[in-house]
Amino acid sequence: MTHEERFEKLNLTLPTAPKPVGVYKPYIIVDNIVYVSGHSPVLEDGGHIIGRVGKDMKAEEAKEAARQTGLAILSTIKTHLGSLNKIKRVVKVLGMVNAEPEFGEHPFVINGCSELFVEVFGPDMGVGVRSAVGMGSLPHGIPVEIEAHFELV
Amino acid sequence: MTHEERFEKLNLTLPTAPKPVGVYKPYIIVDNIVYVSGHSPVLEDGGHIIGRVGKDMKAEEAKEAARQTGLAILSTIKTHLGSLNKIKRVVKVLGMVNAEPEFGEHPFVINGCSELFVEVFGPDMGVGVRSAVGMGSLPHGIPVEIEAHFELV
Amino acid sequence: MTHEERFEKLNLTLPTAPKPVGVYKPYIIVDNIVYVSGHSPVLEDGGHIIGRVGKDMKAEEAKEAARQTGLAILSTIKTHLGSLNKIKRVVKVLGMVNAEPEFGEHPFVINGCSELFVEVFGPDMGVGVRSAVGMGSLPHGIPVEIEAHFELV
Repeated sequence: MTHEERFEKLNLTLPTAPKPVGVYKPYIIVDNIVYVSGHSPVLEDGGHIIGRVGKDMKAEEAKEAARQTGLAILSTIKTHLGSLNKIKRVVKVLGMVNAEPEFGEHPFVINGCSELFVEVFGPDMGVGVRSAVGMGSLPHGIPVEIEAHFELV
Repeated sequence: MTHEERFEKLNLTLPTAPKPVGVYKPYIIVDNIVYVSGHSPVLEDGGHIIGRVGKDMKAEEAKEAARQTGLAILSTIKTHLGSLNKIKRVVKVLGMVNAEPEFGEHPFVINGCSELFVEVFGPDMGVGVRSAVGMGSLPHGIPVEIEAHFELV
Repeated sequence: MTHEERFEKLNLTLPTAPKPVGVYKPYIIVDNIVYVSGHSPVLEDGGHIIGRVGKDMKAEEAKEAARQTGLAILSTIKTHLGSLNKIKRVVKVLGMVNAEPEFGEHPFVINGCSELFVEVFGPDMGVGVRSAVGMGSLPHGIPVEIEAHFELV
């Protein structure tokens, strides 16, 4: 199955590809790598999931936010590259969680995005290297920000 | 106009290219990419802007610090590569802000660096992907640290 | 001397190459770059060094944890690539320290990893670009997480 075929079968609803809120591009291609800017958990209505893990929300809710952030990244790819089939594989994910100092379940949270990428890109090509870490704060109080690199076909 | 011509017209004063304060190089080139180490807001006298956003300084001051950090990055490039014309474009910026947990204006702060890159490298080549995020702490209490990748001509 | 010869002379004991605790790979190769996931200070018995700098541990102890994290990265390379001689040089290190907001000695801490890389890969090839920064929290309360890129021979 191709990435697009898998994506169709999942019946996912993507948010509109987010427009930059600063001086940056949503993605850039150099050679065979697509660099994707840090994405937020943007919803279908254009709003954002807001909250700090360990204070306003639980790890399970933050994992949902990470999945929503992954959907935003997929939307950026589909919108600007035209097809998920342009992607060969996930190379690198930096998963940043807005959490209280004592929080420790960052890998569990970021799996929300990583498991989505597996569903779409497959169990090998959907898995790259990753760091899942805790930030002191994130823009507008979002719980998760994720940047990623993909390899082109 | 070339990057150097734009730079000359701006009449900017660059700080001295910072020397590493640890076991790292200020920049490294692999193939057509220049990787630049995390830079600080170093001043012309060699001192640093210090402060935590939301505690010791406001977002507007932190944005100035981000611009100063961008000037330090330009100084590293000019000093070690000889000319800004060696740069084709900005690929990636990771903008890290030392801020209180409730702070949310990271994109505004990091625009201080990104707007400088637009002035120097132009409105297309000066804009790359970006994440603008909040750290728990930064070396010696600096408000901003920025690392970047550039593509060579 | 080759990297393997230097490594042998150092008489280091590596921890077992860590298995992913989430949906990611320990390393991935694209073209001539080895991307390595964020690593923890894993010990020979499989346990981890735990603690927050400025609260539970001092900078010197965190530097030891950074060295241990570097040993885990070397273990990942040796285990999966077969030999340290496959590495040409260190390209990039992102050193993330779990520290209290007033902590400022991140470069000192991450030197624990960087000095190890110099011992193994030599004074030129062992030194890449770096950012050494403070996180709000890290998985399971580890004091240091480090991700790195290497260039292949």
